[in-house]
Amino acid sequence: MTKSLKTVIIGGVAGGMSAATRLRRLDETAEIVVLERSGYVSFANCGLPYHLGGIIDKRSALLLQTPQSLASRFGLDVRVNNEVIGIDPVAKTVTVVDVQAGTEYVESYDFLVLSPGASPTLPGVEGSDRALVLRDIEDVDRAMAALTGELTTAVVMGAGYIGIEVAENLRLRGLSVTIVQRGSQVLSSFDAEMASYMQAKLVAEGVTVLLGTEVSKIHDSSVLLSTGDEIPADVVFASIGVMPETSLAQNAGLTIGTRGGILVDEFQRTSNASIFAVGDAVEKIDAVTGESRLATLAGLANRHGHAVANVIAGTQTVAASPALGTAIVSFGSVTAASTGWTEKALRARGRDIRVLHTHPANHAGYYPGAETMHLKLIVDPSTDLILGAQAAGGAGVDKRMDVIATAMFASLTASSLAQLELSYSPQHGSAKDPINMLGYVNRNTAEGLTRTVQWHEVEALLESGSVLVDVRTETEHDAGHIPGGVCIPVDELRQHVSSLVGKHVIVSCQVGQRGHTAARLLAQHGIDVVNLDGGYLTWQAGAHATLSPSRSLKK
Amino acid sequence: MTKSLKTVIIGGVAGGMSAATRLRRLDETAEIVVLERSGYVSFANCGLPYHLGGIIDKRSALLLQTPQSLASRFGLDVRVNNEVIGIDPVAKTVTVVDVQAGTEYVESYDFLVLSPGASPTLPGVEGSDRALVLRDIEDVDRAMAALTGELTTAVVMGAGYIGIEVAENLRLRGLSVTIVQRGSQVLSSFDAEMASYMQAKLVAEGVTVLLGTEVSKIHDSSVLLSTGDEIPADVVFASIGVMPETSLAQNAGLTIGTRGGILVDEFQRTSNASIFAVGDAVEKIDAVTGESRLATLAGLANRHGHAVANVIAGTQTVAASPALGTAIVSFGSVTAASTGWTEKALRARGRDIRVLHTHPANHAGYYPGAETMHLKLIVDPSTDLILGAQAAGGAGVDKRMDVIATAMFASLTASSLAQLELSYSPQHGSAKDPINMLGYVNRNTAEGLTRTVQWHEVEALLESGSVLVDVRTETEHDAGHIPGGVCIPVDELRQHVSSLVGKHVIVSCQVGQRGHTAARLLAQHGIDVVNLDGGYLTWQAGAHATLSPSRSLKK
Repeated sequence: MTKSLKTVIIGGVAGGMSAATRLRRLDETAEIVVLERSGYVSFANCGLPYHLGGIIDKRSALLLQTPQSLASRFGLDVRVNNEVIGIDPVAKTVTVVDVQAGTEYVESYDFLVLSPGASPTLPGVEGSDRALVLRDIEDVDRAMAALTGELTTAVVMGAGYIGIEVAENLRLRGLSVTIVQRGSQVLSSFDAEMASYMQAKLVAEGVTVLLGTEVSKIHDSSVLLSTGDEIPADVVFASIGVMPETSLAQNAGLTIGTRGGILVDEFQRTSNASIFAVGDAVEKIDAVTGESRLATLAGLANRHGHAVANVIAGTQTVAASPALGTAIVSFGSVTAASTGWTEKALRARGRDIRVLHTHPANHAGYYPGAETMHLKLIVDPSTDLILGAQAAGGAGVDKRMDVIATAMFASLTASSLAQLELSYSPQHGSAKDPINMLGYVNRNTAEGLTRTVQWHEVEALLESGSVLVDVRTETEHDAGHIPGGVCIPVDELRQHVSSLVGKHVIVSCQVGQRGHTAARLLAQHGIDVVNLDGGYLTWQAGAHATLSPSRSLKK
Repeated sequence: MTKSLKTVIIGGVAGGMSAATRLRRLDETAEIVVLERSGYVSFANCGLPYHLGGIIDKRSALLLQTPQSLASRFGLDVRVNNEVIGIDPVAKTVTVVDVQAGTEYVESYDFLVLSPGASPTLPGVEGSDRALVLRDIEDVDRAMAALTGELTTAVVMGAGYIGIEVAENLRLRGLSVTIVQRGSQVLSSFDAEMASYMQAKLVAEGVTVLLGTEVSKIHDSSVLLSTGDEIPADVVFASIGVMPETSLAQNAGLTIGTRGGILVDEFQRTSNASIFAVGDAVEKIDAVTGESRLATLAGLANRHGHAVANVIAGTQTVAASPALGTAIVSFGSVTAASTGWTEKALRARGRDIRVLHTHPANHAGYYPGAETMHLKLIVDPSTDLILGAQAAGGAGVDKRMDVIATAMFASLTASSLAQLELSYSPQHGSAKDPINMLGYVNRNTAEGLTRTVQWHEVEALLESGSVLVDVRTETEHDAGHIPGGVCIPVDELRQHVSSLVGKHVIVSCQVGQRGHTAARLLAQHGIDVVNLDGGYLTWQAGAHATLSPSRSLKK
């Protein structure tokens, strides 16, 4: 057992509280003080949006622990409404304001753990004091108060994770919701064609999505847009991003990283040997590039807290691993999930990448209730390692993302996904699971069995004289197809080979699978052929994503 | 491209058809003949039980391909009702009976692929011709015919995967169902306490489960049991296991392995250079022990077929990986899944193992609909590698099993499960996912932070003088507890430390988590303490499993 030392923790949620409880389990004699600025600790951050719409009906369900419960079980000295306003790293003290009493005091420490989190970015426009944010219980209380009375319209600024969750919950309250998004797509951390599935869901649920648009001014019951239009808004939510809370760290002279977060080493140590920092406020190491990055994820915060407690207690020294940035968001039955890097970010860096899209059913098609999901895998062609993945759909999206995130953590190659032995019965998967299929498709592409083109490359190829052959049935073709092609069903393709000799052919089917069969067939007859990766469904998603938003206001 | 060679494939389901279609995609000129004994190819094996109860309502939904569709898309020569009765490996021919024409012919091959599958074990008792099995479409047709008319009772022999699926579907038809199981638990490929969740579900759904019992004789409308009892049975299903179909291979002089399957190398080559074998009929290499084993899983069969086509075409040489034996079964809302080895099998071999049980919610407890799941992890203490896992519960069981199977494939340590970055939002998981928690619990146990005991070790410890302390609340204690303990809630434990000094203490809570906190607390006060792994829930499951079956008939 280590000698009794005093650890002061600033911030009593996620990483901070993980550090506190873990430290107590490691060291019964440690003095542990948790200073929390707000009135609550250990609340359910990620549940806050769901209280707005009544999915989480009881406010009390958001409160997981109290200072009292933490004192009795873990012997923690938890002080809510106690805000630290300064750190003296030389004297090893913090200056604290007891917010309710209005008094100030100094607390000493042997170890200090900073868990200040990230603060919502406020829109820098007139009237932004009316914009509601969702960070803590007090924010939820303010939002619930603002949502009482006769309301009909809401504007949500930002179409990220929180914006989408807030939109879902405001729709559940019956509000007419408009999302105003500066970028050209929702979910900017996804590639456009993969984000389009969530955009389609938003629109289907009656949410107006305005892309390429900003709020210029917030009035009492409306907002003015960058387009010049003014739209009604009984309530306004701002979910346009978060910034690491670094003011205390900066004022204490701690090093801030290049991405604006507190710089820490792999054991969460700041530039001061007695001060640790965890969670949303710190910079992480990107698992793919090894570079510094931000990532505001509860799982990482908890892992950091655990690691810090280990270091302070001297019991274990397991570093908090690099961050993949695995994230997931749902609007009702539609889920979008991602991990690692996007195609657009890698292409922007000039990285050579291999991209795969598939559209498998979540379980055996013959078992009732199968739903189509949409998967994207981005692979390093030189190493076959997975650089990133995105998924959209209904049931089973989370499972596939978790398997891929595990494969990435383990540095499995994309081709080895074919070898994974996943649980299969018709309710739960397929004999060749969507994950296995990604592995097979990757191997076929990697080994050059089938060359593929991406949805965004088709137009240029057609302009330069390529022939597009839709190998689906006439019925499927008639229901919707890429302009400029001919339809030759794969089952009749052998009879039409001669008509394609000497041409550069793009074959396209619904999801890419018949296209692969067709491409193999034609290639073996000496035809210069590529398969449209992900087929018509991916092309359609891409085309949808690059159109102007479905309900855009006139410019 | 390889020169045009003729491949004959015996068996047109799963592995056989995977080989055929893959080979065509690799080699447009290959001659490919598929000989299928039954009247159907590419049918949904794993869907068969679900047609009985109408979950898969349409018989046609079970038929995924026809000889015609396979001819037009893949240029395959598929012959149903064509049974191979002999192989001449010297002449490289097979003798085939055209079952419907009643004629016999000889077919030559360059490569032969055996995909004969495994045949259901028939009960060797009088009247067993009335026992229905489910292997192919003809079996389903027979079963559906037997299920017409006024029926009230059914006996299902065997409580494995198929037996449970058949029982579910017979219950959906309104039949009174009795499962007769020779072993002392259902799902013999699970440890008893993990199988107990499925047993409880069976009983809750009105299925009578008779353990340690066999059917001695099948009468016209009843069965005689080994207990001497006779129970009514309008229909009888036999699902007591399968045996690799090796007669053709044996007669052809191919080597049969020690486990009774066709012996193949990692590229599915039999002892004859021109003959391959795939799927349920062959022996696999166990991924954990490296020994030979059987495993009848569709996913493996498909992987084998793929690998064989690659070898024949000379295009790729990716071996079919060793088998973990990942499997899953559901009865309505309850799912049980497993991978790798069980505790009982490893203990029977005298292997030193570390065992963990947890009972996490499938997603954040504060989000509506959270369900408790039950996880078990078996770890090699010397390497920290995962040897096996079992899971039971509702939603999310399949996901956790797939992540663990992926971790095992990648040789991740059990402790590294804590570092996995899985997708989290309150609908889908927890900030510390059940998988992460397994990693934390493993690390705590591995590093000796908390010593644990298993549910089956408690009784002997109490007899030898250990003190059992239930650290749950009085209310929880009163609702059900392990006999012979005292209740001291963890939140009051610090005040009672002195009363425990000098004793060997077992702490026990509901799931093991408060027990860990309590054990750490007591250990740091110098008390010799162990935590009951998995808490009261695991002990209860174990006690339930070791009781006589819930509705056992009198001996």
